Amino acid sequence: MDEKPKKCTVCFEPSGLKTEVPVGTILLEAARKAGVYLSSICGGDGYCGKCKVIIDQGQFQSRPTTLLTPDETRENTVLACQTKVLSDMTITVPKFHTLQTSQILMDTDAHRFRELAGDVREGVFEFDPLVQKLAVEMSEPTVHDHTADHERLYVAIREQIDAPIMQTGFRILQGLSKTLRSTNYQVAVTVGWRGGTTEVIEVEPSMRSKTNFAVAVDLGTTTVVAHLLDLTNAKTIDTEATYNSQINFGEDYIRRIIYAEQNNAFEEMQNRIVHDVNNLIVTLAARQKIDLHDITAVICAGNTAMAHFLLNLDSTRIRREPYVASAGFVPPIRAAEAGVQINKRGLLYCLPSVAAYVGSDIVAGVLTTRIYTKKGISLFVDIGTNGEVVLGNRDWLVCASSSAGPAFEGGGVRHGMRAGAGAIEKLDITPDGSIEFKTIGNTHPAGICGSGLLDTIAELFMNGIIDRTGRFKANGDTRLTEGEDGLQFQLVPEANGHHEIVITQADIDNLVRSKAGVFAAIRVLMNSTQTKTEDIDATYIAGGFGNFMNVQQAVTVGMLPDVPVETIQFVGNTSIAGAKTVLLSRKALETAEKIAKSMTYFDLMSHPGYMDEFTRANFLPHTDLSLFPSVKSVKCET
Amino acid sequence: MDEKPKKCTVCFEPSGLKTEVPVGTILLEAARKAGVYLSSICGGDGYCGKCKVIIDQGQFQSRPTTLLTPDETRENTVLACQTKVLSDMTITVPKFHTLQTSQILMDTDAHRFRELAGDVREGVFEFDPLVQKLAVEMSEPTVHDHTADHERLYVAIREQIDAPIMQTGFRILQGLSKTLRSTNYQVAVTVGWRGGTTEVIEVEPSMRSKTNFAVAVDLGTTTVVAHLLDLTNAKTIDTEATYNSQINFGEDYIRRIIYAEQNNAFEEMQNRIVHDVNNLIVTLAARQKIDLHDITAVICAGNTAMAHFLLNLDSTRIRREPYVASAGFVPPIRAAEAGVQINKRGLLYCLPSVAAYVGSDIVAGVLTTRIYTKKGISLFVDIGTNGEVVLGNRDWLVCASSSAGPAFEGGGVRHGMRAGAGAIEKLDITPDGSIEFKTIGNTHPAGICGSGLLDTIAELFMNGIIDRTGRFKANGDTRLTEGEDGLQFQLVPEANGHHEIVITQADIDNLVRSKAGVFAAIRVLMNSTQTKTEDIDATYIAGGFGNFMNVQQAVTVGMLPDVPVETIQFVGNTSIAGAKTVLLSRKALETAEKIAKSMTYFDLMSHPGYMDEFTRANFLPHTDLSLFPSVKSVKCET
Repeated sequence: MDEKPKKCTVCFEPSGLKTEVPVGTILLEAARKAGVYLSSICGGDGYCGKCKVIIDQGQFQSRPTTLLTPDETRENTVLACQTKVLSDMTITVPKFHTLQTSQILMDTDAHRFRELAGDVREGVFEFDPLVQKLAVEMSEPTVHDHTADHERLYVAIREQIDAPIMQTGFRILQGLSKTLRSTNYQVAVTVGWRGGTTEVIEVEPSMRSKTNFAVAVDLGTTTVVAHLLDLTNAKTIDTEATYNSQINFGEDYIRRIIYAEQNNAFEEMQNRIVHDVNNLIVTLAARQKIDLHDITAVICAGNTAMAHFLLNLDSTRIRREPYVASAGFVPPIRAAEAGVQINKRGLLYCLPSVAAYVGSDIVAGVLTTRIYTKKGISLFVDIGTNGEVVLGNRDWLVCASSSAGPAFEGGGVRHGMRAGAGAIEKLDITPDGSIEFKTIGNTHPAGICGSGLLDTIAELFMNGIIDRTGRFKANGDTRLTEGEDGLQFQLVPEANGHHEIVITQADIDNLVRSKAGVFAAIRVLMNSTQTKTEDIDATYIAGGFGNFMNVQQAVTVGMLPDVPVETIQFVGNTSIAGAKTVLLSRKALETAEKIAKSMTYFDLMSHPGYMDEFTRANFLPHTDLSLFPSVKSVKCET
Repeated sequence: MDEKPKKCTVCFEPSGLKTEVPVGTILLEAARKAGVYLSSICGGDGYCGKCKVIIDQGQFQSRPTTLLTPDETRENTVLACQTKVLSDMTITVPKFHTLQTSQILMDTDAHRFRELAGDVREGVFEFDPLVQKLAVEMSEPTVHDHTADHERLYVAIREQIDAPIMQTGFRILQGLSKTLRSTNYQVAVTVGWRGGTTEVIEVEPSMRSKTNFAVAVDLGTTTVVAHLLDLTNAKTIDTEATYNSQINFGEDYIRRIIYAEQNNAFEEMQNRIVHDVNNLIVTLAARQKIDLHDITAVICAGNTAMAHFLLNLDSTRIRREPYVASAGFVPPIRAAEAGVQINKRGLLYCLPSVAAYVGSDIVAGVLTTRIYTKKGISLFVDIGTNGEVVLGNRDWLVCASSSAGPAFEGGGVRHGMRAGAGAIEKLDITPDGSIEFKTIGNTHPAGICGSGLLDTIAELFMNGIIDRTGRFKANGDTRLTEGEDGLQFQLVPEANGHHEIVITQADIDNLVRSKAGVFAAIRVLMNSTQTKTEDIDATYIAGGFGNFMNVQQAVTVGMLPDVPVETIQFVGNTSIAGAKTVLLSRKALETAEKIAKSMTYFDLMSHPGYMDEFTRANFLPHTDLSLFPSVKSVKCET
């Protein structure tokens, strides 16, 4: 009496796409099979709530979830990833949902961060995008002008752009003559810059020449940000961000490499980040009603490990002495080769990187801040898990990466958290000793994010609650108690069922080590180039945490050198700004390559002076107070 | 009581390769499935006899064939393409057979032709092959030399060769770091020249750097010739030839294009020629015990249509006014993309062509004869189905193609045949009027091939049997009789069961038209460049038929201009010689490209003077006897 596994037909509206699947198939899988793209950031684990669909007809079984409102449940809205197909079904894929998908999941951090990207400065580089669509008109062949179609096309392209070396894919060549004849030799030609050559990517009817888009991506270890650009006019149309879904495999990329090595999971690691990138692209395209076919390029900047993950290059040596990448200059590849879903012949570019620990995001930062053009010396600091530092001017550039650790991203800190809703982002100890703070979203505090932690350390120090070594002073403050990990200081008392928020001695030690790592890196570069603090004309702070921090406090705790606060600038997400600059100009790509080649990298692990600098920086603000005259004058005479 | 289709295991010795197939499967197919390559030129039709194997064990059913000797049949030798698998089987693939496969089918014509290729002249172009294997040694990375693997490789390659623009395939990049580490950074790098860029094709252990082969192919409409070259020392190791198996679809390429259009058979057309090329490559590789993996390049020359067939480019416009090719300059592609079986990342090059009717074989001819370097004017004639003609010197080059028709290849001639065994290749009418001749293989004559036909016309003319219009003269010769197509002249009487051999008025008309086409093309070029016969310093005759013809007779009938016979040279198969020259030197490729670009093509169909010249040439030797003083002096005073 056994029945064979029954097949069910699932039809997705409004597209009308259909598929046949066995009873019990997860609806998200059925959608994929039918070619219906549902946003899903958690990869089907049921916690992102992005894959909501409405069941119009048919039997199903859904696992309970808190991500649906009672109204939604009444209207048969389900999470596709939590729902099994039990019969033939008709499904509606909500339009408004796919268009505004970001509002469902994107949390404050990602949202705040995505807004940070500086606009590409106009006029610095000539507008000459890496991928262009040219409207190409050729005269039709005659007996007196019998040039072959392929050469005819090249001649016409070269009338418009400088392309001494060209290439054409075999499939394009095979279809070329038919296309030219069916269009009376009036075509839109997509050409892509490919490491010294110009590739004919596509030949289409000429009306398509006005539609050309690209996506720039900042591959952050924590957050992945994407900007959609119109390549016909260099405008940024839309932006989106998501968490890097590799995060389950480790907060920092070294842990992810270890995880991947131990679990043979490099492919999975690639799938995750490619999935994130695709998710962003699809979200942007859907919201802007753009066909993926019209997105002809993706450009990525990020740390070296993330670029390796994205392309599944061998990253195992990044974490082992002598810390070598597979490739710093990754040649452009077809995006489809890496699984990135744009035009199937579209190109994927990666900005060049300097070393295993100084990635293309830093090159992008140098490009964006234009340090490499200035006579005076600039300092560029990107404080994240690593804390990359660049020092230099138009004549020289040096760089290093301190493994600052994730303390300022909330890692290794009892009540540390990422900059999401409820995170304390500002904190102040008033003259009467009471603590004032501001949370993201102005809700009850759930923890402390990076900028709040920096404030905390600085305020504790300035108010004499911790000493120059970061140790709590036993001064009778009742908020200072013995906790399970030693001394801890209460910042927010327990209230209304919300837990108290404290900072422990271990937290402080971690934070001091983090800031010491950054400062020691800066010092090594300064010493190596005989740069004094007063020689630094400008300091640029990039990255997510950096842009919300109080720079005065960063000087106070000795994370940044004691430069005039007015010479310190927040420059936002220079990684994506640099990626966009390069996307829009071949000349900028050349410049980025020159920057990457010309930067001298200091490996701090093997640098004889680094440990000493690090030890000296493990004080507030520093062992050598003469380096911090402004702090000394306020505080350190005590 | 129905049985399910039984599966049989077929094991091929000595390789031990196995496969499972349903009962009734053709053995040739089973071999393909098992990955055992059996030579098969007829494509499984049972007439080439190349796929002989020995059945050691198992039941089978073979169709009768005359291609096996009784001894072979006794020893269970079968044709794999004519044999069905009926049970589990063990098969021996004879070694000696695959190694000497050419002796089974290759007939005299192909054999003669393959010997014709002139050697590549040494010293003309620097030895710098299009694909090279470099022994590359890098120092291993240290903390002080942390250059990424990919850039390290590029630096090391650039120490050896000039490669300003390089590219690396994605898969190579993904495996690069592992390869470098497992070889201690001592590798063999295969680099290929790809239209202005240098591609890293493969990175292998260093011991493989000494093994690098390539195949040069002349894609003839009738015969396909391949030469195997050792790219480490520029030596030609072996040669092989086969008939072009597209021949069933038409003797000339125009008919094949028509056939393919009418039968939607362009893919089949490609499959055939690719199959022929693969057959040649496999035969050469097997005979020389070379792994296909070590053949890293294939280079082809041939007429424009054949290049289109090989790559399945759109050839439909070649036969239609204004006669335009899809591509004259075909970019190098991965051979595997076209189905050519060498190293799976190896490159396939096509020499550049000039126009739809002047292919890369002619460019190769100009390159080989070095016309383009000479102060004096040279004439280059490749007489085949088309009869391409080049005239020029170091300052200018003009070219044209007469559709001479296949008369001199035996087409449209009653007893015409290709230059196989039994073909009359020389013919002479002695002073007493009797006919002497020589056949290929010295057997009883079966027909007349090109050189014999030329002799026949010339001798009939010189002996007054035909007049200057090519008409038979009614002079009472009993060999001249009325046949079914009008007058015919008996060359060889019927004897011992062998049929008589005659030449008919229609044959002569065809042959005269053919020679008139070639001469008219030459005249158009001469007229257009104000070249007189006495200005021609050297005449080069290329191609299969050309190289066996009596040049004096070619002048006598007015196919060639009346230049001193001693200035006429046979240059053999310049198509393959040119392909080899280019294969061995990037500079030669550049030169070939320059030649192809600089040649001015005259389209005779639309040329106002051509028809007139053709009509005037439809005489023996010509209407204007002043053009043929040497012939006039011997004969034409009559």
